Formats: sequence, C-alpha cells, structure tokens
Amino acid sequence: MKIQLWREMLDPYDLAVKELITKFEHLKYEHKARGLYCPIEDVTGRVKSVSSILDKLKKKNLELEQMEQELDDLAGIRIICQFVEDIEKVVSIIRSRTDMTVRQEKDYITNEKTSGYRSYHIIVDYQVQTLNGPKTLKVEIQIRTMGMNFWSTIEHSLQYKYKQNIPEHIREKLSNAADAIEVLDREMSEVRNEIMDAQNARQIQSNI
Amino acid sequence: MKIQLWREMLDPYDLAVKELITKFEHLKYEHKARGLYCPIEDVTGRVKSVSSILDKLKKKNLELEQMEQELDDLAGIRIICQFVEDIEKVVSIIRSRTDMTVRQEKDYITNEKTSGYRSYHIIVDYQVQTLNGPKTLKVEIQIRTMGMNFWSTIEHSLQYKYKQNIPEHIREKLSNAADAIEVLDREMSEVRNEIMDAQNARQIQSNI
Amino acid sequence: MKIQLWREMLDPYDLAVKELITKFEHLKYEHKARGLYCPIEDVTGRVKSVSSILDKLKKKNLELEQMEQELDDLAGIRIICQFVEDIEKVVSIIRSRTDMTVRQEKDYITNEKTSGYRSYHIIVDYQVQTLNGPKTLKVEIQIRTMGMNFWSTIEHSLQYKYKQNIPEHIREKLSNAADAIEVLDREMSEVRNEIMDAQNARQIQSNI
Amino acid sequence: MKIQLWREMLDPYDLAVKELITKFEHLKYEHKARGLYCPIEDVTGRVKSVSSILDKLKKKNLELEQMEQELDDLAGIRIICQFVEDIEKVVSIIRSRTDMTVRQEKDYITNEKTSGYRSYHIIVDYQVQTLNGPKTLKVEIQIRTMGMNFWSTIEHSLQYKYKQNIPEHIREKLSNAADAIEVLDREMSEVRNEIMDAQNARQIQSNI
Repeated sequence: MKIQLWREMLDPYDLAVKELITKFEHLKYEHKARGLYCPIEDVTGRVKSVSSILDKLKKKNLELEQMEQELDDLAGIRIICQFVEDIEKVVSIIRSRTDMTVRQEKDYITNEKTSGYRSYHIIVDYQVQTLNGPKTLKVEIQIRTMGMNFWSTIEHSLQYKYKQNIPEHIREKLSNAADAIEVLDREMSEVRNEIMDAQNARQIQSNI
Repeated sequence: MKIQLWREMLDPYDLAVKELITKFEHLKYEHKARGLYCPIEDVTGRVKSVSSILDKLKKKNLELEQMEQELDDLAGIRIICQFVEDIEKVVSIIRSRTDMTVRQEKDYITNEKTSGYRSYHIIVDYQVQTLNGPKTLKVEIQIRTMGMNFWSTIEHSLQYKYKQNIPEHIREKLSNAADAIEVLDREMSEVRNEIMDAQNARQIQSNI
Repeated sequence: MKIQLWREMLDPYDLAVKELITKFEHLKYEHKARGLYCPIEDVTGRVKSVSSILDKLKKKNLELEQMEQELDDLAGIRIICQFVEDIEKVVSIIRSRTDMTVRQEKDYITNEKTSGYRSYHIIVDYQVQTLNGPKTLKVEIQIRTMGMNFWSTIEHSLQYKYKQNIPEHIREKLSNAADAIEVLDREMSEVRNEIMDAQNARQIQSNI
Repeated sequence: MKIQLWREMLDPYDLAVKELITKFEHLKYEHKARGLYCPIEDVTGRVKSVSSILDKLKKKNLELEQMEQELDDLAGIRIICQFVEDIEKVVSIIRSRTDMTVRQEKDYITNEKTSGYRSYHIIVDYQVQTLNGPKTLKVEIQIRTMGMNFWSTIEHSLQYKYKQNIPEHIREKLSNAADAIEVLDREMSEVRNEIMDAQNARQIQSNI
C-alpha cells in the first residue's frame, strides 16, 4: 500500500484521537474547576504505526483489507488513574456518554493476563466527519493505574525484544515488579479517602 | 453572579470551541494531505468574555437568565478564507456535516451592514458532554476573507472606543478602507483559478 | 543525502523555530497583560522543506555542504503587524534583545522588489543546545503587515506555478492588488492613533 | 499586592517554564529521532500559585520583597525518568548546557528526607527577555523516577491536609508505599540494560 493511501486510511483515526484527548482533558479541567476529585490523572493517545499494523496483521494471519474490521486498536486512548478504585469511575463515565457507544469491555484487572498484564480495556464506536462524510470507527480505551502503566511499558519493550521468548531470569524480575506494584496500589487504596479529601481541599482553596 | 457560577455556565462553550477548532484544523490538514486546495486559510475561536456578555445583555435589555437563550455568540468560531468564492464552499461543508445542525444563516456579504461590515454568519446547534450529561448549545461561525477580517478588527476597536458615535473623518477613512478591500478581493478572485492550480501543484509536490 | 541525515541537520533549526515562536507569543501576552498595544498581531514559523532547499541550491548553483553557510532561511519566523508603523517597533525590539544577534537587515519596504514584494527581513544568529552541545545558526525573521502578507502568499504561489514567466495579464492583476494594499495600509495608518487608543482601553477594561 | 502586580512579577517565570519545557521536549525528540534511548520519560512545569507563595513566605517568616531572592521554586520543572540510573544522566546533561548555570544541587536520593521523600533537585540561573530587557531568574528542576513521583504526589496531598501532623496509621502506609517503590525501582534497574537495548531496537525500527 502506498504511503498516500495509508495516510488517507489512518487520517480519520488521527482525528478521533485528537477529539477524544480534547474531551477527556476537558473532563479533568471541569472536575478541577468545581473543586471535585478527578478520577483521571493523565490522558494520552496515539494512532498505531504502520509497522505495528503490519506486524499485527502478519501475526494474526490477516489481509490488509481486513485491517479496519479486525484490529480494534488502530486508534488508542490511554487513561491513567491514581487509584485502582478510580478505574471503575472512569468506566462508568464512558458508559454514560452519548458521543460514543461501548462495543466490548475486557477486564484484565480481575482477569490478569498470564504475562502479569493488568488494565481495563473498552472498545467504543466513535463517529468523525471526513472529506467523504461521516465515518464510524473503533477506538480502544485503556484504563490503568500509574503502577500498571509503568509495568506494561517495560513489559512491552521486552516483548518486542524477545518476541515470545523472554528469558527466565527476566521473566522473574518482571513478576517481582508486578507484585511490588500490586502491594503499592493496595497500600495506596487504603489511604485513598484521606487523599481525596486532601486534594479536594487544595483545589477549592486554589480556586478562590 | 459569582465567578464560580460563570465558569460552570461557560465551561461547555469552552469545550465546544476547542472541539470545533480541532475539527476544522483537521479539515485543513486533510485537504493538504490529499493535495487538494483548502477553502479554509485559518481558524480561530473564543468564548465571549464576561464583560462583553454583560454589555450585550444591557444593550439588549435582557436578564442574566435569558443569556443562553438569547445570545447566539457565547461560543464563536471564525474561519478566514483566501477568496470570496471559498466562503460558499465552507458554508456548504458546514451544511453537510452531521455533528452540527444549522439554526440560522445571515449573509452580510450580499447584504452588507450599513457600517460596511461584511461576513457570512451561521448559527449551529452543537452537542457537548458535560459532568451533568449531554448539552446542546449554540455556536456562531463567522466566515470571511482576510480583507473582511482586517476591516472588521479595526472597526470593532473603533466601535468600542466611540460607542455609536464614530467621528465623521474616521468614518470616511473606514469607508475608503472598505472600498480598497473590495477592489482587492475582486482582483484576487480574477486570478483565483490560476492560484488554486499553483497551490495544488505545490502541495502535491511537497507530499512526495 | 539520507532522510536520517537531513533530519539530524534540520533538527536544531526546528528547535530554534519552536523557541522563537514561544518567545514572540509571550511578548504578545506580556503587552496584553499590561494593557499595552502590541505591535505583533501574529507569529508563525517553519523549517524550509527538503524539496525547497534542493530547489534553492540548484538555482544558486551550490553544493549540499554549503547549505548552512549560504542559505539564510533554513529557519524562518514571520511576524504579522496591523500597521506599517508597527514594523519598525518590532525591528527595534529585535535589535535590543540579548538572546539573538542581528547579522543583516533587508528593507524591502523602502526598497520594494521589482515584483512588488514588500517586507522587512532580519537575519539573526541564534544559539540552541543540541545533543552535541551548543550550536549557533541563522534565522530569517520576516516582518510585514497583513496586507503585505496576503499579497506575498498569492505571489509566491504564482511564482511557483510559472517559475520566472508569469503571464502579463496576471502580472497586471498582481500589480493592481499591490496598489490596493498600499492604499489600504495608508488609510489605516491615518486612523492608527485612534485605534491604538481604542484597543488599549479595551484591554485594560478586560483585565479588570 | 494587586493581581496586576503579581502577574507582572510572575510573567517572566511563566516564560522560563514554557521555554524549558520546549527545550527538554526537543531533547526527547532528538534522542528518538536518532534511535537513542532517552533518559527523560516526561517533562512538566508550573509557576508557583499565589496562594502557595503566600503560605511559604509565612512559614519561612519572609516579606513579600524577599520572594524572588529567597524562594527557589517560583518556576519549577519536573523531569520523570524510567530508571534510577537515568537521573544522573539527566543531571549531567543539565550541567553541560550553556543556556543555564547550576547554582545548587540537592541530592535527596542519596540523602532521603525523613518523610521518605526522594528526588534530585537542581537550582539553575536562567535568563529570559522581558519588556524591560533581559532578566536572570532561578528555576528549580526536580528529577525523579515514576515511582518517586507517584509517592511524592500522594505525600504532598497529605501534607497539605494534615500540615505537620499526619496521623500515625497513615504515616505507616506511606512508609510501606515508599518501601514498595524502592523494591520496584531496584528490580527495574536490574533489567535496565535489557530494556534499553529493546527500546533502542524499536525506535530504530520505527524510524525506517
């Protein structure tokens, strides 16, 4: 496929990512402006790179034409939360929005992947306007704590290096790290109410 | 009204402006990426300031509660075009979008205001998601050439200084300027086809 | 030259453009925050595209290695002013800064090019920090009114299309347009003091 | 002090923060573009809020006039690293730059605060251009891992709520969290070389 055609195919996904970042950033701002604790700490997004798309198609034994149908994460949004409890809050906000429709939810927190990967994924349908009229496309929203995010960044790099064959001593380090992060997230949850009160108090103060 | 309440009232308008700028900027990008001439040269937006809102309510003899109902330009988008002919292209793009609904169109180009003001205004209904759920609000989209924009920037400042009483010698200069701009826009229109071809050729070239 | 090498060569120019836009934008903000009229209406910037660089080298009969030495506009900043009088204000601001050194000034307003092109150009030395340490490079700053900018945008497209051979009937239209713009800029200058007072009054008002 | 005066005093700090974010972001980009591992994961910055400034002056028993002299963190930059080892790399980059001068370094990693706070602080002198000419001001650059950042975000909120008197059961949770983070950072360091290789390989790949 020519670079020009890739571009035309991926442009609407790029627009979806930009619109959704704008929307979730505003949600943060709106909480802050009203002195409310915000379950969203950070929002990022990306369109999948052409080389990653080609890798995934090959791995799944798919044709180029099946790309938009079969790949759920051409457009990806990542929402980082301070606490595990914030994740379900974000999920319920997404379910209640009328500008996107939930297609599928994957709870890799309750059902941790064997690799140790933990995150909550929601695939939504989202409509953008293009030069050829409206187009509805899929966007994958990943919701996770800072700890889960740290772990998966590292694991993703190692997966990339070793493909399926991460050496045992490294796998063990990763597993230890995952345990340390679970302890951390649990300790943090236990002081969460205290912290939420504290943060609200600060925001109200700084709005005065 | 307390500053906190103004903020809560105006926040959704702020979000609408941000989303629409993102969308119209992408439209520019999309034309460019495909080597097509884009009728949009520049996009800006703003939420009306509290002091301007108060002035307008007073002038129109309205209560605070009537603000959202009666003022069409709490959220404003301005689209600048290179040529007069581009304006109708932008208008027809807006009419065909499914993420906004045209409420009203005001053609101050065919029907120039007595002040000399020329622009095409479209009031649309646009929906945003807030902490309290979806909200549909009005946005005023102004479409004009660079020349029309230059003139109205100047005139707006003078209106502000002199209220309704701009001195005769200044009114005359403004009128001369408006005439010069019309000549300019007309001359430019006559070479428009040549220029469009030239700009398309450049964009295709730079995409290679 | 490989794309990777182009990138490494042009990256410092990209950084210079980003830094200078940040700095000139702040200057606008600083004027506004103090209720002062700002001689800068708009700031944009760009790094010259690889295809434009190659064209220019060919036209000037230069080698690739001479590029940084011989081309003054690898990094370009454009400052748009409301009034002709603002241009000299911007020039004197640039001359007085200690974070850049003026190498050369070209006054194409007093000495209009035969094509009708009018603008004030300043070439400055500007230092950025790179992975390999500090690097001083040249940046071309173009200062012009909105009218001059409009004209040169059009002329640039036509130059591109026709190379040196713009047809006579188009050359004439361009010349008429240049005249209309000079009339416009002159009329505007004559009401400049009134307008500056008006804009200051508005800014002070909206800062309260 | 009037809001207008606060603004004029803090504006140069705001410019410094914007310039430094632009510069450190470019450093990330430059590493990525050359397929090099970047010791910087994320950069943020802020100007201290007026209410925080007043609190700190009161706590330190200082007058308003001493603010710029005595407070080192009116402008603050925060650099987040993936690994503990990256911190010293960032420190040595900062020391070698010619656009800032190190005034002071505080190593709260080797010398953890009694609260458990860990971070590396560098105070630099940095010059910006203002309406009144050049001005040299202090900027505090904090360098820390993602784990250290997580902990200090939480601790800062609790400090704010309880002032000096954090209850014992919460202090204990914080201490457990700090321990979990140290374990995590240590485990990660042990696979760092593997990960750096992996990330370099990916970047080179995606640049092709």
